[in-house]
Amino acid sequence: MATTTEKTYNPVTPAIVEELKNIVGARFVIHDDAEKLEPFSHDEVVEKAYRHMPEVVVRPRAAEEISAILKLANREHIPVTPRGAGSGLSGGAVPIHGGIVLLCDRMNEILDIDAENMMITVEPGVVTSEINEHVEPLGLFYAGYPMSLETCYIGGNVAENAGGGKAIKYGVTNRYVLGLEVVTPTGEIIELGGKLVKDVTGYNLLSLMTGSEGTLGVFTKIILKLLPKPKANVDLLCLFTDAREAISAVPKIMTQSGIIPTAIEFMDRSSVQASCEYLNETLPYKNAGACLLITLDGPDEQQVEREYEAVGELCLANGAFEVYVADNFTTSERIWKIRRNCAEAFAVISPIQANEDPVVPPSRIPDLLEGLRKIGEKYNLYTPTYGHAGDGNLHSRISPKPEVSKEQWYELLPGMLNELYTLIADVGGRVSGEHGIGHKRKKFVPMFLSPETIEVMKSIKRALDPNNILNPGKVFDV
Amino acid sequence: MATTTEKTYNPVTPAIVEELKNIVGARFVIHDDAEKLEPFSHDEVVEKAYRHMPEVVVRPRAAEEISAILKLANREHIPVTPRGAGSGLSGGAVPIHGGIVLLCDRMNEILDIDAENMMITVEPGVVTSEINEHVEPLGLFYAGYPMSLETCYIGGNVAENAGGGKAIKYGVTNRYVLGLEVVTPTGEIIELGGKLVKDVTGYNLLSLMTGSEGTLGVFTKIILKLLPKPKANVDLLCLFTDAREAISAVPKIMTQSGIIPTAIEFMDRSSVQASCEYLNETLPYKNAGACLLITLDGPDEQQVEREYEAVGELCLANGAFEVYVADNFTTSERIWKIRRNCAEAFAVISPIQANEDPVVPPSRIPDLLEGLRKIGEKYNLYTPTYGHAGDGNLHSRISPKPEVSKEQWYELLPGMLNELYTLIADVGGRVSGEHGIGHKRKKFVPMFLSPETIEVMKSIKRALDPNNILNPGKVFDV
Repeated sequence: MATTTEKTYNPVTPAIVEELKNIVGARFVIHDDAEKLEPFSHDEVVEKAYRHMPEVVVRPRAAEEISAILKLANREHIPVTPRGAGSGLSGGAVPIHGGIVLLCDRMNEILDIDAENMMITVEPGVVTSEINEHVEPLGLFYAGYPMSLETCYIGGNVAENAGGGKAIKYGVTNRYVLGLEVVTPTGEIIELGGKLVKDVTGYNLLSLMTGSEGTLGVFTKIILKLLPKPKANVDLLCLFTDAREAISAVPKIMTQSGIIPTAIEFMDRSSVQASCEYLNETLPYKNAGACLLITLDGPDEQQVEREYEAVGELCLANGAFEVYVADNFTTSERIWKIRRNCAEAFAVISPIQANEDPVVPPSRIPDLLEGLRKIGEKYNLYTPTYGHAGDGNLHSRISPKPEVSKEQWYELLPGMLNELYTLIADVGGRVSGEHGIGHKRKKFVPMFLSPETIEVMKSIKRALDPNNILNPGKVFDV
Repeated sequence: MATTTEKTYNPVTPAIVEELKNIVGARFVIHDDAEKLEPFSHDEVVEKAYRHMPEVVVRPRAAEEISAILKLANREHIPVTPRGAGSGLSGGAVPIHGGIVLLCDRMNEILDIDAENMMITVEPGVVTSEINEHVEPLGLFYAGYPMSLETCYIGGNVAENAGGGKAIKYGVTNRYVLGLEVVTPTGEIIELGGKLVKDVTGYNLLSLMTGSEGTLGVFTKIILKLLPKPKANVDLLCLFTDAREAISAVPKIMTQSGIIPTAIEFMDRSSVQASCEYLNETLPYKNAGACLLITLDGPDEQQVEREYEAVGELCLANGAFEVYVADNFTTSERIWKIRRNCAEAFAVISPIQANEDPVVPPSRIPDLLEGLRKIGEKYNLYTPTYGHAGDGNLHSRISPKPEVSKEQWYELLPGMLNELYTLIADVGGRVSGEHGIGHKRKKFVPMFLSPETIEVMKSIKRALDPNNILNPGKVFDV
């Protein structure tokens, strides 16, 4: 998948491997072993076309080691691809030009829990769900909730500006990143932000780094804002006859109630079925064509009760034929597990698929769904859809029906995707709401951003990474 | 105040004035008239040292006109300083190298109110408080609340990433900027973001532009996120014996209650007195040394009532000797007006002063206050303080006591400020929480950011503005 527009890089020679061993320690360097290197040739993108083997994998323990590796890579002109848990969905951690994979798994310490300031300082290799395990006993919580939170690393969340199930109320990762220690592409260690709730001292490099997909810096320390943990929460499972009806209800529920729920997740019939089968689980789904999973949280039970009654009523008034209330942890977790595992389930069902992540103005979701349905009809495809209805961010796992052969699928794919992204652009949307561009989606970016806008982004990349060493070929070709 | 490290610029010749008249129309160009140009030589910074006259002021009506002006300025090597309402507090809109002031007052239309998506599209010259006048009848509100909201422009809020009184709960301007039309320093018109709640399509240029103090682009359209308007709110005026006690209570109130108030504003005794005298107003202040103004809002009155009872109790348990409840608009507005006018009041009382805007980790505010008190003692100064206690962002209006002469003040000023900023750095703070760096505070930036960090910022400025035309000499010298 290496593109011809990128510079050619030098190979990782035995001498360079020795140098890397001197930096991180011999046992933290993987090389010359295809079987051990293979897991680092891909992330969770199922298509094999987006894989590429690294020449060497290094597992540094400190910012200084990463700095030394990047200085070496600049000197020798070797690409470096940072990697967290490998749970990405855009090929962002795939070393498409070979070279060095920089694995952050050993940098996995929680460095400081500061309850008084409601902040936590972590290393990038901490598993996201671990953060809440540590701070919940203190009455605090971290509001990031990507669907992969039980496996993904917080460093990857920051690199991708991860969204997830609670973004409608709590925002995406960016809102919680107060400070970063960053190793720049040229190997300088810089500190951005700090234990500060607000700060306008210079440009907002924190937000520029967050979501830069490992192309502008490697994060070695992350200071996150915490919130007081809500003392009550309830989930509503709202059943609708069809997807369009469910989606149309979303902006009405919010504007009519004046309430921003914690989550408004959407699953169509086939997404629920796939995930239930995968988990050997059931939902009271009846003949529903689609459902909304609405979570409400708040400072006490009475408040949450009042809110769920209001929201439940509005769901019924706006087309739901049934609303189930899940007001205990076990039932809530059962439903959320089904939602979290949609992606896994479809990956198992159909390894041949296009998993897209469009984001559109919330009011245009029905148009997106209708367009998707037409594309499915035209090309003879399944278009199961689920995602974050409250944010206008839907995931579609498009896959061929049995009568479409593998060859036909690969033949129709480019035209079908072009049609899909044209539709997304037509309704005012963008390429990705939370999965990122990586190298999988970079060809679609020019359909959404003007050449002048892309040039501004590239000029920033060139300014920070003059040798194009850090994660080259991602987001765009420089 | 022009620094020698900036390039020298060319003068605005009569031929260039003619060209500017052709671009925006003759009656929208101010030149050759010192009296009419003078208002554009300063913002709200009181020190005369930070003033500088423009050569010409132009008042464009459209992005295309701004693009033409910037292209001309690049060709002729003339600096361009964008300006909103001139209510800034860091000299950001002051044309310190002369040249062209780009006044955005004619670009003041509300372009679109999209209730379904809960978004509004405005031009930069719209007065901030006007936004809520338009959207409140629809049950919506814009959460930005800078203290100058009745005069400042939304374009300036975005340029400075304005904070304000409600940032503790609602965050600063950046959280609400979903889309921008920007004229780049070289005159390209680009669109960033859109009517999208989240979006990871390329680098986060939206956040880079927000808070860039007019050095990276001129905003010509702004899409803002709105929220459902809270249906109830209450203010608590909590009296404490001294400032340290009041400030110490703040993190305790939040962590013990689990509630994030809408605002936790702090005023010491002299700030309340000054503002009350300025407004010819009174507060039930008794012998208090300091007060907290705590606002709570929510979806209904019962909820807000429960919250204010809990918070009020915690104030009393943590040192307040009296808590007054203001649960109607008139009383609430009376108190808030006193808070909003602290800055104005001190500007009138003492035109000789240093108005600083430090932000520190919230738990370190008591150390900042104690250090400030010592500095006041050492140099024989008043150090009245007020601000956003919940965010760790305090404003101090430092001014000489009567026995200190004007000459002595100017002699002690550099040493005193150096001591103050050393203190701020020592407690983990930063130069500015919300007023910006401008040219007034840029000399302090190297005490807080490493040379490598500043170099990253400068490299971005150089990449976007190769001729250093747009607002040169602000934030740092390139």
